[in-house]
Amino acid sequence: MVQKYLSLVNGSFEHAISVLDRGFAYGDGVFRTMQIRHGLPVNWPFHYQKLVADCAAIGIVCPSAELLIHDFSILFPIRELDDESAWVAKIIVTRGEGARGYAPPAVTVPTRVIIKSPMPEYAKAHYAQGVHLHVCETTLAKQPKLAGVKHLNRLENVLARMEWRDEAIFDGLLLDDQSNVIECTMCNLFARFGHQLMTPDLTQCGVAGITRQHILGLGKLLDLEVNIGQIALDRLLQADEVLICNSLFGVFQVVSIADVAWEPQTLASKIRKLIAHD
Amino acid sequence: MVQKYLSLVNGSFEHAISVLDRGFAYGDGVFRTMQIRHGLPVNWPFHYQKLVADCAAIGIVCPSAELLIHDFSILFPIRELDDESAWVAKIIVTRGEGARGYAPPAVTVPTRVIIKSPMPEYAKAHYAQGVHLHVCETTLAKQPKLAGVKHLNRLENVLARMEWRDEAIFDGLLLDDQSNVIECTMCNLFARFGHQLMTPDLTQCGVAGITRQHILGLGKLLDLEVNIGQIALDRLLQADEVLICNSLFGVFQVVSIADVAWEPQTLASKIRKLIAHD
Repeated sequence: MVQKYLSLVNGSFEHAISVLDRGFAYGDGVFRTMQIRHGLPVNWPFHYQKLVADCAAIGIVCPSAELLIHDFSILFPIRELDDESAWVAKIIVTRGEGARGYAPPAVTVPTRVIIKSPMPEYAKAHYAQGVHLHVCETTLAKQPKLAGVKHLNRLENVLARMEWRDEAIFDGLLLDDQSNVIECTMCNLFARFGHQLMTPDLTQCGVAGITRQHILGLGKLLDLEVNIGQIALDRLLQADEVLICNSLFGVFQVVSIADVAWEPQTLASKIRKLIAHD
Repeated sequence: MVQKYLSLVNGSFEHAISVLDRGFAYGDGVFRTMQIRHGLPVNWPFHYQKLVADCAAIGIVCPSAELLIHDFSILFPIRELDDESAWVAKIIVTRGEGARGYAPPAVTVPTRVIIKSPMPEYAKAHYAQGVHLHVCETTLAKQPKLAGVKHLNRLENVLARMEWRDEAIFDGLLLDDQSNVIECTMCNLFARFGHQLMTPDLTQCGVAGITRQHILGLGKLLDLEVNIGQIALDRLLQADEVLICNSLFGVFQVVSIADVAWEPQTLASKIRKLIAHD
């Protein structure tokens, strides 16, 4: 496959990992996708903290921040520091190689992979006029032991993403099996009801992204009460404003979900400024 | 990691796959573990049929049987046909390489990996006196779209397998979130109640293995009524006999689950003979 990317495996330029890697065998690992500006991930402390927490959730020892920063310095060398072009870095940390069988070896050496690829170009219309969501038929299974964690078991997201090809649809809304809104396939979601800004509870399923975490702390700056709770789909469709967020585009307003539409408003751009995504 | 194995990636001797493979990125693929005797997988028609069905369940085009048999002929060459030593072949089929993002590329070429490793040696006592099970605290999430499929999203099995280190325990019993018995981390389960031999319903979670499928067809030969149904843990513990099965060891009797014990009986060895595992 021809595409523009560069990758480091355990600190060396490599584009392959062992067929015995448990990340490949079982999805036994976690990952992060980050925007790189001036050689370092935007909001790196949030990302590293989350990487450590996600590794801990499945019992993997996270590589040190020093090691990862050294990797970044190789992939994004100093001569690019003045380069305004943005890149995406995807970090994958797996439990490492193992023999056949689910039991991890007594001693495991985590595999760390960093993949550098060009920053996707988001349409200007997404910023100005918002985005459209599909409501996925694929629902998220409840697994409290893995909920919130950005692990490598992402078949639900893949199946959900395969539900539409219409390029006018930016992402798909994922519900649990009781029609509660959880997230989208590649981002988290907020809904504003008057002065309340709510984001779904992710203790049963979903991925708790760092931009969501960031926004949860912005209540005072936004003059909104920001909190976590259950949001049924019916209720979401009555929200005053719906937003989605991730580490690459920051925040977009949602202007339609299925046949319900909203007028473009200003909260998304206000938050983008606060989280350094504008 | 030093260990005795040999692998083919898309028909060539390789021990690595691309970091962009969707099997690694998302667990976007399926697998099978098979016993090889005389150069071919035992019960190959069952295995291939299941591989095709599992690929179809997640929208992957399965490699042809001809291609896979050619791969086997390379990994298990004809000079070994008289060799009585048994091997294990693990086939992994992924959706192939992809760019960043959950959407599969418009055209994907599935990746096929076959890993050859030595057949594990099961203790003679497992055949004669049965095996012990741990009851896992990790439960299986309900996802009807993936239930039954042996896909690469196996973090639940990994977390469950990490719950014990006691070598006297052969496997862990996995329940759903309502305490229904589903399977073990690496095998399926049957429970005999008088003349009824039951195996759990796997339409919400679990992996429907081919040995289970095989046994489901043996009712008349065993003079038992064999069927699929819901089995609560409480009920399982009152069974007359509990068996576990997979493609490597065939069938073992379970002689203890937590603090409930059974005397060794004869059904396991009877079934092993019928399914060519003795």
